[in-house]
Amino acid sequence: MERALINETIPRLGEKVRLEGWINTVRDHGKITFLDLRDRTGIIQCIGQNLPKVSPESAVEIIGLIKARPEKLVNPKLSTGKIEIEIQDLKILSPAAELPFDMGQEDLNMELPVLLDYRSLTLRHKKQRAIFKVQAAIIQAFREALIKKDFTEFQAPSIISAVPEGGAEVFKVKYFDYEVYLSQSPQLYKSLLVGIFERVFSVNHIFRAEPSVTTRHLTEATSLDAEFGFIDSWQDVQDLEEYVVRYIFSEVQSKCSEELALFNATLPKMAEKIPVIKLREAQEIIFTRTGRDIRQEKDLAPEDEREICLWAAEEKGSDLIFVSHFVTKKKPFYVYPDPEDPTYAFSVDLLGRGVEWSSGGQRLNNYQDILKNVKEWGLKEEDIALYLQSFKYGIPPLGGFALGAERITMHILGLKNIREASLFPRDMERVDIRLTSKKE
Amino acid sequence: MERALINETIPRLGEKVRLEGWINTVRDHGKITFLDLRDRTGIIQCIGQNLPKVSPESAVEIIGLIKARPEKLVNPKLSTGKIEIEIQDLKILSPAAELPFDMGQEDLNMELPVLLDYRSLTLRHKKQRAIFKVQAAIIQAFREALIKKDFTEFQAPSIISAVPEGGAEVFKVKYFDYEVYLSQSPQLYKSLLVGIFERVFSVNHIFRAEPSVTTRHLTEATSLDAEFGFIDSWQDVQDLEEYVVRYIFSEVQSKCSEELALFNATLPKMAEKIPVIKLREAQEIIFTRTGRDIRQEKDLAPEDEREICLWAAEEKGSDLIFVSHFVTKKKPFYVYPDPEDPTYAFSVDLLGRGVEWSSGGQRLNNYQDILKNVKEWGLKEEDIALYLQSFKYGIPPLGGFALGAERITMHILGLKNIREASLFPRDMERVDIRLTSKKE
Repeated sequence: MERALINETIPRLGEKVRLEGWINTVRDHGKITFLDLRDRTGIIQCIGQNLPKVSPESAVEIIGLIKARPEKLVNPKLSTGKIEIEIQDLKILSPAAELPFDMGQEDLNMELPVLLDYRSLTLRHKKQRAIFKVQAAIIQAFREALIKKDFTEFQAPSIISAVPEGGAEVFKVKYFDYEVYLSQSPQLYKSLLVGIFERVFSVNHIFRAEPSVTTRHLTEATSLDAEFGFIDSWQDVQDLEEYVVRYIFSEVQSKCSEELALFNATLPKMAEKIPVIKLREAQEIIFTRTGRDIRQEKDLAPEDEREICLWAAEEKGSDLIFVSHFVTKKKPFYVYPDPEDPTYAFSVDLLGRGVEWSSGGQRLNNYQDILKNVKEWGLKEEDIALYLQSFKYGIPPLGGFALGAERITMHILGLKNIREASLFPRDMERVDIRLTSKKE
Repeated sequence: MERALINETIPRLGEKVRLEGWINTVRDHGKITFLDLRDRTGIIQCIGQNLPKVSPESAVEIIGLIKARPEKLVNPKLSTGKIEIEIQDLKILSPAAELPFDMGQEDLNMELPVLLDYRSLTLRHKKQRAIFKVQAAIIQAFREALIKKDFTEFQAPSIISAVPEGGAEVFKVKYFDYEVYLSQSPQLYKSLLVGIFERVFSVNHIFRAEPSVTTRHLTEATSLDAEFGFIDSWQDVQDLEEYVVRYIFSEVQSKCSEELALFNATLPKMAEKIPVIKLREAQEIIFTRTGRDIRQEKDLAPEDEREICLWAAEEKGSDLIFVSHFVTKKKPFYVYPDPEDPTYAFSVDLLGRGVEWSSGGQRLNNYQDILKNVKEWGLKEEDIALYLQSFKYGIPPLGGFALGAERITMHILGLKNIREASLFPRDMERVDIRLTSKKE
């Protein structure tokens, strides 16, 4: 008999079906046992008599009849709540050991390290699973949005031969007789590929050896990168990014409504147009609102990001805000200075719900300008040889941005720690297992 | 004036347009200059008088009138061959230095090392660009095929804490106070995720420190991985893979016909069903056809793969063939032995046009069976802790496969070296630049 999925059972009342899945919960009432069976499409209650003992999380096959539940036993919380399966045969495909904690509760109330120690198991909880359904939708939406705009996907390398901007936070790899590094960003690759495809995007992993344990940093993260040429100004970058973010929200809303509901999450409030202010304006606003004078600072601190997001929500009705014109010298060598005041650059960050979601902007495209900055920033030409080669042979005005997949996931769902938004989060202390356990 | 794309000009005869792109070729006839302009959608001829000097590959903006070409000057090779642009204004957005070689020829006749030394430039050639248009289509088709079958995408980590099966060909990473490694395969992650999503896929980078320079190996490659649970047998894996491969071919055929034509490439010939034979049968066939007796061998050598593909093409009308039932002991610890003869396993490789495209099969899912093999294969439980945790708590019968994105690209287009199918190929001697140049 062909397998039926749980979400296919509802219209098949009275039929005999074969289901497969995991035992979500077991309630034993003497002879009669109630099982909640879970598959990738949902959960359904199954009832049987004199069943073999079966532990939660065991993988099973159930053959049974689809019956209507008595009116007063209907469960309005389940999409299959009006029916149940009268078990005729239960086969254990793979028994589960006794669980170290109750997986059937609405929330897994445990500390993050424990959640991650038991990652294989805790990910099976509906709320954990939901996080990564949302993440998959975000990533697929990012790609779809850009494919619709004629962008070409590329594979960004993880292994790089040099770290042009200093190696403090870069991982070193022993590569035969050489030392190479893990990429912190595909920036130079995506820029040079504008010369080939005009418009490119990549979903790629980036690596940061930041020696700090915060709620916002991972050592391996998923970066959603886009770059395109023949732009008229940095505002084209901002417009593209706004389009992409709206596309992502719309896809998540339509594909993941159940997942959002599990977290009582709503998508960020959007004004008709995401507001954009310059760094200096942001600093004035913060001074006016809080009395804190940061008008001489060269960047926004985390508390400034929170404050400017509050302002945008209160004054502009938007949970997202672009901040542009950061300080040129604080940005990488390829940043495009504003000709009207070269102290500031055509860079533009997207902030959402209190934190930075992405950074981007227009990049230098004139070869001589780039060479000048390479010197000023103290870089070696040979460390960015392939990139320079590209700009030597004609690259139009260009720009782009990078969104952090885990960050968006985290802030759409209101998670407290970015590790919750990574299936297998890597940090200073953990690569699946706690690293201290390696140091015996 | 809004930019017009080159493929939008054809129906706009007589109109004034603004185009942007690169100078593909320049032909100077005294006062009159013929330029071929290239953008992401195509090439169009532009004619101007007394133009400023402009070098090939410069990025330019051209404003001009769309005119019909005289009948005898129509170029049937160009989709825009019946029209041309009468240049009114030419603006150089970014000039190109003099090219080190002619980019306008039909083929870039150069040795591979030179092709890669000038990667930023050589990728602009239409045939090079075409390779990666095909690759993008392959990868997107892989994802689409599996999303249609209810698979969930996941991000496979690149950094791993242990190398369960020995570290000979693995890259080591200095990770704060620890040593970690680059992943050779997401196998253990995709298997454990079957417990969460039932069906998963990933487009991820894998790393192999093979100290050999061949035409088939890269140190960083793109792996297309799928894994799913509740299978009835290893044939379910084979069926899914056949569906995915057919889907990829169909997408490449419809989206990349121009790119295929550039290489005179045709997609692999497909029988109604991809034939499947066991390793032992393959060895008998090779013995019968060639007299070469490999019937005691434990695997197929490259020449055997070529021979069995020839047989499949001649006898079965198929450029693809599945070979199943490899020797259990030559496979990883999670391989599922055939209960009728446990010397051989429920593994299945896909061969195409003479080489292996993928490997896959059914995996062990019973926790005790796995523990037994972990011992027999001489592995340490702590090195695969997360994986074992998953199987301890109920994983149904499962299987999957991994396809190499560069390999498929290479063999669809008939490329000679896998490096040609990687934008930025990494090998023992090269990470963008030739590594010897680092050793000063």
